[in-house]
Amino acid sequence: MRMYDLIEKKKHGESLEREEIRRMIRGFTAGEIPDYQMAAMLMAIYFKGMDEEEITGLTLEMAASGDMVDLSGIEGIKVDKHSTGGVGDKTTLVIGPLVASLGVKVAKMSGRGLGHTGGTIDKLESIPGFQTAIPKERFFEIVNQTGIAVVGQSGNMVPADKKLYALRDVTATVDSIPLIASSIMSKKLAAGSDGIVLDVKTGSGAFMKDMEDAIALAKEMVSIGTKAGRSCCALITDMDVPLGRAIGNAMEVREAVETLKGRGPEDLTEVCLWLAAHMLYLAGKGEPDACYHMAQKALEDGSGLKTLAAMVEAQGGDPAYVLEPERWERAAFSCEVKAMKDGFITRIDTEACGIASVMLGAGRSRKEDSLDYSAGICLHKKYGDFVKDGDVIAVLYGAGENLFDNASKKLLSAYTIGSEAPEKKQLIYGRVTKDEVVRF
Amino acid sequence: MRMYDLIEKKKHGESLEREEIRRMIRGFTAGEIPDYQMAAMLMAIYFKGMDEEEITGLTLEMAASGDMVDLSGIEGIKVDKHSTGGVGDKTTLVIGPLVASLGVKVAKMSGRGLGHTGGTIDKLESIPGFQTAIPKERFFEIVNQTGIAVVGQSGNMVPADKKLYALRDVTATVDSIPLIASSIMSKKLAAGSDGIVLDVKTGSGAFMKDMEDAIALAKEMVSIGTKAGRSCCALITDMDVPLGRAIGNAMEVREAVETLKGRGPEDLTEVCLWLAAHMLYLAGKGEPDACYHMAQKALEDGSGLKTLAAMVEAQGGDPAYVLEPERWERAAFSCEVKAMKDGFITRIDTEACGIASVMLGAGRSRKEDSLDYSAGICLHKKYGDFVKDGDVIAVLYGAGENLFDNASKKLLSAYTIGSEAPEKKQLIYGRVTKDEVVRF
Repeated sequence: MRMYDLIEKKKHGESLEREEIRRMIRGFTAGEIPDYQMAAMLMAIYFKGMDEEEITGLTLEMAASGDMVDLSGIEGIKVDKHSTGGVGDKTTLVIGPLVASLGVKVAKMSGRGLGHTGGTIDKLESIPGFQTAIPKERFFEIVNQTGIAVVGQSGNMVPADKKLYALRDVTATVDSIPLIASSIMSKKLAAGSDGIVLDVKTGSGAFMKDMEDAIALAKEMVSIGTKAGRSCCALITDMDVPLGRAIGNAMEVREAVETLKGRGPEDLTEVCLWLAAHMLYLAGKGEPDACYHMAQKALEDGSGLKTLAAMVEAQGGDPAYVLEPERWERAAFSCEVKAMKDGFITRIDTEACGIASVMLGAGRSRKEDSLDYSAGICLHKKYGDFVKDGDVIAVLYGAGENLFDNASKKLLSAYTIGSEAPEKKQLIYGRVTKDEVVRF
Repeated sequence: MRMYDLIEKKKHGESLEREEIRRMIRGFTAGEIPDYQMAAMLMAIYFKGMDEEEITGLTLEMAASGDMVDLSGIEGIKVDKHSTGGVGDKTTLVIGPLVASLGVKVAKMSGRGLGHTGGTIDKLESIPGFQTAIPKERFFEIVNQTGIAVVGQSGNMVPADKKLYALRDVTATVDSIPLIASSIMSKKLAAGSDGIVLDVKTGSGAFMKDMEDAIALAKEMVSIGTKAGRSCCALITDMDVPLGRAIGNAMEVREAVETLKGRGPEDLTEVCLWLAAHMLYLAGKGEPDACYHMAQKALEDGSGLKTLAAMVEAQGGDPAYVLEPERWERAAFSCEVKAMKDGFITRIDTEACGIASVMLGAGRSRKEDSLDYSAGICLHKKYGDFVKDGDVIAVLYGAGENLFDNASKKLLSAYTIGSEAPEKKQLIYGRVTKDEVVRF
């Protein structure tokens, strides 16, 4: 087998055999297949696609390229959640504790944020003392004790994906469903949970701008997960506007806490309850509707919040920040962004909101950038709200007043104000299971 | 301009601006754009193509990436010829002297052979003493004196093409008409002639196996040449069977000499006369038919042969090898390949013949391989011939008897013998000028 022949094969739309995929991934990970050949292959895959068998093979070979986590040291059913990324997406901080409080184990490995979207690990590290680099034994112990732990990806997990993603990122081959699906699922399979709920975002702030693409991606990922012997389902959720009102690490933790107290924004609460319901469903706790009510109860009776506090404490953080949110230090400076005319908010460009938050210091443009945990944006007015000229639509927070000039322009550009009230937006567009696609 | 954005643009089928192509080619030649990004671009071009303006821009930028030869030091009209490569293709050795003897200047830069096809420089170097590395001033002097000189590509000509071709060769992106056309024409434009006749081969031994692809490539190249201010036309010629009977460097020179004496194989003679006719036509010597008769006369009266001998002498070779072909040293060993049954030869796989000749030492598998000039193959039976079981169909020549086992098997596999006489093959399928495509 020469890599040249595999490129030629894929270029002509033929399927690669499992053995060919295995050698390709091993050779590439070991540095024996050069980047330029893999770049040509990636572009050929972009144009010619891969069939289900190829995608599953690719995913399993990628997952097997490094350490596969064995979660058998944790009792009970372990369910994971993955979101395709968004702005203001703090769902993990709400859902994880909720389902853990209902007896489902959440042994989660998360990433850091890059570009306009944030990462769960960054959000949690805004809690003073919180540790995300935790040895495996202690990680398992915490999950066994509190039902949940969230740590950073450690060691040599899925090196094939790291290398492939870095190459896709500079060769304009990121937006290929087989490549996205295999990248996400290889990490989820390596992370070892029994069940996986996928939150596939669609809309202006999501990777999949288009609903049908989101469904196609969801189907592909559910198929891979199922073939790999995991229970798996996906929800297609809206990321046409940011989720909740807070964008920025500490601000998002506070909003998650508010949500776990039953006082969170309606959109965030609703999406969290449905995602939690599907994690419970995969763990065999009942049908999704029944599970939704279980999750709602865990939110109302405070057991989700109690579990979050226990996890924070177990991971070295100060639980007071969860139980008494007034503890949080506010940013040194703030700036109000005001509407320039009367009307209804007909659009909020989610990506622009994310970029504005990066300008304030809440995110990273480059991997090596440091974060200001207290920086961020609070969206006072959201999609569908009526505003009058001069009304505060958002407040920016940052470490210096010099940050506000560009960030406020960027944020203002994200809002579209029109004369007619827009249609109400759906929060959840559909569900994909191994057996069916349901559109809501 | 970031290379990433250009890949993205081409991936979506958009046209690249001239300025974008310029920066891409300069950046790549200078090593600022990495191979992996160019590999992704090449594969995107393979799938999405390029429009005429892009291809012309790409060709001109590639030509300008190194030295552009200024032939104004040579008097009169200079006409070049390019063949897309074949097996047993010694046409340059016949045509060049023919048209030079008729007052058209041929200042030719040629290449070496690689893989199953030979190169004119290798063939000429089989003449004892013949020099192909000649300084520019002397090169011009020889052309002014004898009408023709054939030298190796020297110095820093078209480095962008060298780098791009090497990358295409390992990323399965060779077979793209925009990339083939720009590669060939960039070299021809940099080589400086006023007129360019393109010999586009089609058939089993050619790069373009399919007639329509050959016409598309010819149209593209003629269009580029015309837009670049050169006079340009193309003939589509057969390479479904090897041209002539000789394959191998010295053997091909001898066959070219026989042809210039009017005793060459019919197919080779006919193709040479038509190619020569079109070189004369581009030089303004008359219509192609009239030019064909001029070339025929130059062949019959020996003026072509005289010009070849003069060129050989001017380039340091011994003209006796041209004038008295019995001078040539024969290979130490030979081996007859015999038909295994009665019948008509219905197919000769040209590529297999080329590979057999490489096995005998007449060609290179790798750039660094050395050549045995006297090695090669003489095809005694050709397409359409009737053979009886045991008839000699070809004779192999080489430096050792151990070479013959594999080479004779390979050569035998190239021949198909059937019970019915096959249809007569056309030698020339069509002509492409800037104004029209004529199919014969």
